Amino acid sequence: MEIYLDNCATTKVCIDAANACMKVMTEQYGNPSSLHKKGVEAENIVTAARKTAASILNCDPDCIIFTSGATESNNLAILGGISARKRDGKTIVTSSVEHASVEHAAAYLEKQGYTVKRVEPKPGGNFDEADFINAVDEDTVLLTFMMVNNELGTVLPYEKIIRALRQKFPKLLIHLDAVQGFTKFPLNVRKIDADLISFSGHKLYAPKGIGGLYVKKGVRIEPIIYGGSQERSLRSGTQAVPLIAAFDEALKLCRDEGEKFAETYRFCNDYLRKAFQKMPEVVINSPANASPHVLNISVPGVPSEIMLHFLEQHDIFVSSGSACSKGAKSVVLKAYGLPEDRVKSALRLSFSKDTAKEQLDGFLDVLEQGIRRFKAVIR
Amino acid sequence: MEIYLDNCATTKVCIDAANACMKVMTEQYGNPSSLHKKGVEAENIVTAARKTAASILNCDPDCIIFTSGATESNNLAILGGISARKRDGKTIVTSSVEHASVEHAAAYLEKQGYTVKRVEPKPGGNFDEADFINAVDEDTVLLTFMMVNNELGTVLPYEKIIRALRQKFPKLLIHLDAVQGFTKFPLNVRKIDADLISFSGHKLYAPKGIGGLYVKKGVRIEPIIYGGSQERSLRSGTQAVPLIAAFDEALKLCRDEGEKFAETYRFCNDYLRKAFQKMPEVVINSPANASPHVLNISVPGVPSEIMLHFLEQHDIFVSSGSACSKGAKSVVLKAYGLPEDRVKSALRLSFSKDTAKEQLDGFLDVLEQGIRRFKAVIR
Repeated sequence: MEIYLDNCATTKVCIDAANACMKVMTEQYGNPSSLHKKGVEAENIVTAARKTAASILNCDPDCIIFTSGATESNNLAILGGISARKRDGKTIVTSSVEHASVEHAAAYLEKQGYTVKRVEPKPGGNFDEADFINAVDEDTVLLTFMMVNNELGTVLPYEKIIRALRQKFPKLLIHLDAVQGFTKFPLNVRKIDADLISFSGHKLYAPKGIGGLYVKKGVRIEPIIYGGSQERSLRSGTQAVPLIAAFDEALKLCRDEGEKFAETYRFCNDYLRKAFQKMPEVVINSPANASPHVLNISVPGVPSEIMLHFLEQHDIFVSSGSACSKGAKSVVLKAYGLPEDRVKSALRLSFSKDTAKEQLDGFLDVLEQGIRRFKAVIR
Repeated sequence: MEIYLDNCATTKVCIDAANACMKVMTEQYGNPSSLHKKGVEAENIVTAARKTAASILNCDPDCIIFTSGATESNNLAILGGISARKRDGKTIVTSSVEHASVEHAAAYLEKQGYTVKRVEPKPGGNFDEADFINAVDEDTVLLTFMMVNNELGTVLPYEKIIRALRQKFPKLLIHLDAVQGFTKFPLNVRKIDADLISFSGHKLYAPKGIGGLYVKKGVRIEPIIYGGSQERSLRSGTQAVPLIAAFDEALKLCRDEGEKFAETYRFCNDYLRKAFQKMPEVVINSPANASPHVLNISVPGVPSEIMLHFLEQHDIFVSSGSACSKGAKSVVLKAYGLPEDRVKSALRLSFSKDTAKEQLDGFLDVLEQGIRRFKAVIR
């Protein structure tokens, strides 16, 4: 039995999404830019998915731009947003725990002469909204930060931050990287007045290679890719229709079954937290109020890679940190103030809509074996 | 019976490619950046596809970067290439018949202060290599041009151009947009010494949303998207593994069956050219030595859209020009010096590996009906 507990890295594509992708590849294969009805058929698929994404954010479908994934969405928001505001200020505010696609885009701008302020979390793993609010000043052109952290599951106080800063600095460009929160928490743009919101397909049962960016009406950004003017000229290039069709199905599933999925994540989280209470070797890194689909733990003394490979020998898949920083020690966990021995031994468990009790039991069983084996050797 | 003659816009995904995509979505769904074997399995799929692409270009697999499509590849080559050479010159040489993704990226740089020289074709639709060679001078930092034109099928004298300029200006950055020629003509980088070569999946029986860029060993370009350092940091973002698996299958098919496919294109082209000899209303726009998979014609007096929609009523799909310029009158055909009435009435026919004689007969039959119907009304 395969036990896949690495759903923050990527998810298995749900069957409706996979079937939709297949149908587009082999039947509805027109180019959405073609004028004939084979093209119109493809364009309608894109339009339908745009409507579905818009229904989740409660926005006009025109506000949704499809991209190749969240990394591109984040880059388009940050680099394209800054390009359109060259005279509005030279400071960018972000957090110290962002995904590489936000951090490295900000770091690129830092090299170009921008000042990047990175707000830090409080001990315990949560953020104080006041720290974001106080970091922004008249020189700040862009606020870019994440909704839910991908390593600990910490939910940032995005609603309060955005509400306060929208009022205080009406011209500030506000970008929310919602990759780990999209469809997991309500994100109504009439309440959460961000200018730009990034989201990804493969974190929510759609295939890799598709993502989206919400661009608020009237907000101007520059493209980072030029060409045939698709996606309102903000993202040229033939749309990946098979993936967009799949994305549509996955988004509908998460929208319509979201509460049920949330119950599953909550169950998994509670079940493991309870089990870990009886395992003194395990320390829980995720704050109690973190998003339930992620649970970050450490087994101090046992390096992450050692436990990870022991688990995979039993077909159990977890991660040591963000997949996108492949094996490097987590700078994010360090930024969260975790002690060195916990950073070195961190394991991220992340759940899917299909994660079941038996899989959690299977994982716990092998984890205990691993602890017995390695604690003895290492200590 | 559906008669799809718009394969330059996009192709139907071949069954092996579609099946590979399906398998990855539902079984091999790991993140290639994950350290566990589910991740390694996904990484191996990417590595295998990289090898296949490299086998076509006769290069090291490390030289292949996967992107979301040719538009991104062209932008990465042009914008990323220029970013890495800010002090090497301020002139870019290209042609007047490029795809929007090259032309608009060049136009963007023009606005930033670069001089863009656009080499024009000779009457008849072919290019003189001397015009490219003479356009490049000491101030030229980048030569970017297409291998095969997407509207007429004109094959540019890329081998001669690249050989001459590589010798004359060893430091010149040379980018070849090979989208319409890839796997259709041999492209051995040991003979065709370009620095950067773009190619696309959906023009050759792979799905939309995947493309590649060959980057010659030692050639430095800057990324246009920052993040988790995938694809040697030149293209961050989780790789679209389902599409890459499909791309691998399609590339193998085109590599291994390329000669057979070429025969089919040649047959279709010859068959229609012969038929058009008996249709005085039809003028052939593609030069005789154009790539056989494209045949551009005009029925002067009958606007493209009118004929296109008449054909589609009979489930026959052709295009009026590049799909990526959706309905706009072709600037490329104009640049080729075609008279106005032929530009306005142009129809692009483009063939797939599966295009059969019966489909061509079906098309010819309806085209004749269309000519009879509209010539009478319009004249």
